[in-house]
Amino acid sequence: MHIAILTFDGFNELDSLIALGLLHRIKRPGWRVSLCCPTPEVTSMNGVTVRAQSLLEEAGTADAVIVGSGVRTREVVDDAALMARLALDPEHQLIAAQCSGTLVLARMGLLGTVPACTDLTTRPWVQAAGVEVLHQPFHAQGNVATAGGCLASPYLAAWIIARSEGLEAASAALHYVAPVGEKDAYVANALGRIGPYLQA
Amino acid sequence: MHIAILTFDGFNELDSLIALGLLHRIKRPGWRVSLCCPTPEVTSMNGVTVRAQSLLEEAGTADAVIVGSGVRTREVVDDAALMARLALDPEHQLIAAQCSGTLVLARMGLLGTVPACTDLTTRPWVQAAGVEVLHQPFHAQGNVATAGGCLASPYLAAWIIARSEGLEAASAALHYVAPVGEKDAYVANALGRIGPYLQA
Repeated sequence: MHIAILTFDGFNELDSLIALGLLHRIKRPGWRVSLCCPTPEVTSMNGVTVRAQSLLEEAGTADAVIVGSGVRTREVVDDAALMARLALDPEHQLIAAQCSGTLVLARMGLLGTVPACTDLTTRPWVQAAGVEVLHQPFHAQGNVATAGGCLASPYLAAWIIARSEGLEAASAALHYVAPVGEKDAYVANALGRIGPYLQA
Repeated sequence: MHIAILTFDGFNELDSLIALGLLHRIKRPGWRVSLCCPTPEVTSMNGVTVRAQSLLEEAGTADAVIVGSGVRTREVVDDAALMARLALDPEHQLIAAQCSGTLVLARMGLLGTVPACTDLTTRPWVQAAGVEVLHQPFHAQGNVATAGGCLASPYLAAWIIARSEGLEAASAALHYVAPVGEKDAYVANALGRIGPYLQA
């Protein structure tokens, strides 16, 4: 199981790295999580330079893909050469988008008529791409999920874990990262967010 | 205002980078937030390599210091040469520790008789260093604060913002990162965690 977290220059640290940390709670052999970038290094919206763990082309063969967020997503979706490197297939992959990552899915036509979540800043651009935006932190239909607000990224990661490893594994990963003294309430709320979308 | 986030090899991505993202919500001239490392590059507990933005010696002149967490903190506190590079002074600096970062403060003698927060794994080691561990996500006394559980790191960052820029600025930063549809409840809970420690 390879989960590629698409991370572009100008990325939001919370969106890519909270998901990465949570997904790494699964210790099963063959479980791989990678920061997936267009170049060997990318620099965040706040000047943090990280090294890529896979390149964009590898997302096409990943089992799950999280499209991270950032301050340059509008440039990304307008960059035809960059977008041409990206092949995503919700028939065979779990596809999840965080905040402005939803704009990437919208522009790739992967949302169809499904409503989506995104952050308050990206909201008008996603709407302009013809997608209804929900006022909630998480939504999924079939193999495609979206989340809005940096701290909704644990919901996205937990959804991927729940879909591939089961709800108990997702619950354990959430419990580990939750604040001390708030763990049970945190896990209950998070599972309440993703649970309804796991039945379908 | 320089806030140094101490980040060692084996670091927990959530603990260093959630705080960094939140602190960068303050856009005031002279406001600087840096990943502060022992070497020009460090690699996280999950294999993510990041470039340092300051070196350990600079923490001594920072206005605020967050001691991040990771899987190698016990090696850090036993490394006399590494610890000798670290000069922290709660008389003149805000000092905050996240999860196993609390062990660093305990071993430096900066907690005295003040109880502290840490994660469930680090708990026995902090207790062995003679510090009472609280079952809550955040605690502060004077210029020293501690937090337990990765997702308590926004509380630590918000405490630093509240102490230097005021409660309204802290509230706005928390609001930005909170999940869509949960923002008001999230901010209210977070301010409820740090508020009681701002009056003293």
